[in-house]
Amino acid sequence: MSAYVARADRLAQRVEELGLDLLLVSHLVNVRYLTGFTGTNGAFLVGPGHRVFLTDFRYVERAKEEVPDFDRVRGREDMLESALEIALDAGDGREGRVRLGFDDSHMTVRAHAKLAELAGDRVELVRAGGLAEDLRAVKDEAEVSAIRASTAIADDLYRWLISEHGLAGKSEHEVAVALERRAQDHGADGLSFPAIVAAGANGALPHATPRRDAVIPRDTLVVVDLGCMLDSYCSDCTRTFATGEIDAEARDCYELVRTAQEAALAVTQPGADVREVDRVARDAIAAAGHGDQFGHGLGHGVGLEVHEAPRLGPTASGSLEAGNVVTIEPGVYVPERFGIRIEDLVLVRAEGPQVMTSIPKELIVV
Amino acid sequence: MSAYVARADRLAQRVEELGLDLLLVSHLVNVRYLTGFTGTNGAFLVGPGHRVFLTDFRYVERAKEEVPDFDRVRGREDMLESALEIALDAGDGREGRVRLGFDDSHMTVRAHAKLAELAGDRVELVRAGGLAEDLRAVKDEAEVSAIRASTAIADDLYRWLISEHGLAGKSEHEVAVALERRAQDHGADGLSFPAIVAAGANGALPHATPRRDAVIPRDTLVVVDLGCMLDSYCSDCTRTFATGEIDAEARDCYELVRTAQEAALAVTQPGADVREVDRVARDAIAAAGHGDQFGHGLGHGVGLEVHEAPRLGPTASGSLEAGNVVTIEPGVYVPERFGIRIEDLVLVRAEGPQVMTSIPKELIVV
Repeated sequence: MSAYVARADRLAQRVEELGLDLLLVSHLVNVRYLTGFTGTNGAFLVGPGHRVFLTDFRYVERAKEEVPDFDRVRGREDMLESALEIALDAGDGREGRVRLGFDDSHMTVRAHAKLAELAGDRVELVRAGGLAEDLRAVKDEAEVSAIRASTAIADDLYRWLISEHGLAGKSEHEVAVALERRAQDHGADGLSFPAIVAAGANGALPHATPRRDAVIPRDTLVVVDLGCMLDSYCSDCTRTFATGEIDAEARDCYELVRTAQEAALAVTQPGADVREVDRVARDAIAAAGHGDQFGHGLGHGVGLEVHEAPRLGPTASGSLEAGNVVTIEPGVYVPERFGIRIEDLVLVRAEGPQVMTSIPKELIVV
Repeated sequence: MSAYVARADRLAQRVEELGLDLLLVSHLVNVRYLTGFTGTNGAFLVGPGHRVFLTDFRYVERAKEEVPDFDRVRGREDMLESALEIALDAGDGREGRVRLGFDDSHMTVRAHAKLAELAGDRVELVRAGGLAEDLRAVKDEAEVSAIRASTAIADDLYRWLISEHGLAGKSEHEVAVALERRAQDHGADGLSFPAIVAAGANGALPHATPRRDAVIPRDTLVVVDLGCMLDSYCSDCTRTFATGEIDAEARDCYELVRTAQEAALAVTQPGADVREVDRVARDAIAAAGHGDQFGHGLGHGVGLEVHEAPRLGPTASGSLEAGNVVTIEPGVYVPERFGIRIEDLVLVRAEGPQVMTSIPKELIVV
C-alpha cells in the first residue's frame, strides 16, 4: 500500500471517530502529506467512504503524476466551492445534514463565512483542526529517512564551513549565501529557511537576518542556524562557533548551554511531558543566573515544515511519542554582547533518543 | 513625515470612517507596509488616537531600528492576547464596548475564537479585512521606485539569459538556479518566487517546476517567468522564447498572445473595470479558437507581495486606479505541446499606462 493511502486511511479513521462524514483538508502542506501533491492550489476530502483530491486547471496535469492513489476532480480556482459541492453530493439521498469538518487552525474567518453561506442548512461545518498535524508529528520510516538525508546535507555544510570556508573576515550575508548555494549544489532543493549567521552582538537577536555590512570579526561568537530541504523534508541545526579567543563569561555561557542541551536530550523520550523536557534545560540555565536570557521555547517538531508539532516549551502541552522528530535548542542571549544556541535534531525512540545531527558540540574555533 | 506615519494616518482615517475604535493589523506584510518591521512576529494597532506596534522578545532589538515612528510594546509570543489587552486599556473609563476591527481575510477561525473568548463582552470584534490591502494597491512614489529598481534587475537577468547564458542544452533547473544566483549577485535579495523555466510540453503547465532532468531541446518554446525581490518589493515578468525553428501553429499562437497582450495594455487605465481589461485579451484569444487554453486571470497587482490587489480576471471586480502596478499576462497552453505567456509589469497612470518591463515582446530565438 502506498504511504499516502495508509495516511488517508488513518485520517479517515479519526474522521469517523469524531462523528464527521467528511473532513476538508485545505492547508497545502497537509494536502502534500496526505496525497503527494506539490502544487499551490489543492484540497483533499476524506471520510469513511471518500477520498477525493481537487485541484484547478493549472495543476491537472501535475496531479495526474503526483496523485495516482485517489479520485481527482478538477475544481474551480476557489477550491472551497468545489469541495462543498462534493460534500453536498455525499449527502444526497440520505437523512440529516452532512457533517463536514474543516481546519479551523488554518481556514480564515472570511473563507469560513463564505463556506457557511454556501453550505446553507444541508451541511454542518465542524471545527476539526490539527488532525493531519497530529498524524504528521509521528514520522513513518520513509519520513525519518528523508529527514536523515536532509540532515546529512546540512551536516556536510557545517563540516565544510568549519574546515574550508571559515567565518572571520567574511560578511554574515556572504556566508549565508555560500551555504545556500552549496546546499543546492550538493543535492538539496535549498535551505528549509533563510540561514542565520549572526556574529557578536547580532547573535543576541535570536532571529537576526544576515547583514551584508556585518563583517565577522576575530575573537567573537557566531551563531549559525540552518537546515536543508530535500524531497519536501526539512532539517534544522544550530551551532555557535568562536572565531578566536573569547572571554571567560562567553566560555562559561557556552558550557552552560551545552550542559543544558545535553540534560534536555537525556529526557527526550516517549511519554515525557513537553513542558518538563523544556524545564530541564530552563532550570539549568536559570540556576546559573541566565533565566531571563533564554526567551524562546526549547524545541519543535521538524518534517514537511521546519516548525511543526510537537512543540516543547513552557506553554506547550502534551507528551512526546516514539517517531517524533524534534529539535532540542536552548540558548542564552546577552544583549549587545553575544548569543549562544546549540540545536540538535532528535528522533524520539523507546530505546532512547537518537541524535540525528552529527556535528560536535564542543566549542569549535573556526 | 515618514511614509509609515502617512500610511498609518490614511488607515486610521478609514478605521474612523468605519466606526471602529481600533484595527488590529496582524498579517505581517501589512505590518511591514504600515510600520517598516521585517521580523516574523509583530502586530500593529491603529485607531484615531492610537498607533501601537507589538512584537515579542526575539524582535525587540530589531524593532528599535525598524519601527522608530510608533510606540513599541513587547508582547507575548501570542500577539493576539497582548493586542487585546491594549484594546481593553483603550476602553478603560469610557461607556460601551470597544469596537475592534480584525482582518477576517487572514485571521484563522481558531485565532478568532480565542480572541472572542478573551474579549468577553467588553470588546466587540468587527470584520474589517482588506483595509491595508486597499491602501497597498495604490503605490506611492517611493514604492514605484522600489518596484522599478526590482524590475531593472529582472530585466538585466533576461538580457543576460538572451545574450550570454542561453537555454538549449541546459536543464530547466540549471537555468532557474543560474537566474537566482545572478539576481543575488546583482544586488537583489533573491527572486520574488521560484523561477519558472518550462520547455515544450512543460510550458503547457502554467505553474511548472523546473526539472533537473528536463534538458531544454532545440526548436521548442520555453516559458520563463521570474521576478526579483529588492528592499521587500517584488517584480514579475514572463517571456516565451524559441530555441530555434518552431512550427507555424506555435508561431501563430505566439503572435496571438502578443496581440492580445498589447490590446489589454492599451485599455489598462484609471477607471477601467478589471473584468473588462481581462475580457479584451480573452476575447482576442477566444476569437482565434484558443479560448479554452487561457485558464487563468489576466493579471494581478505587484508590490510587497508578488500577488496582491487589484486582480484582473473574469471573476474579479472593481476598477483600476492611478498608482496601481499590475501585470498583464495572457497565455495560451496547448496540452502536451507548448505554452506561451507574455507578461509585462505596468504602472497605471492618468496619462496612459507605463510599461515598466523593458524586454522586447517579439519572439526572440535564444
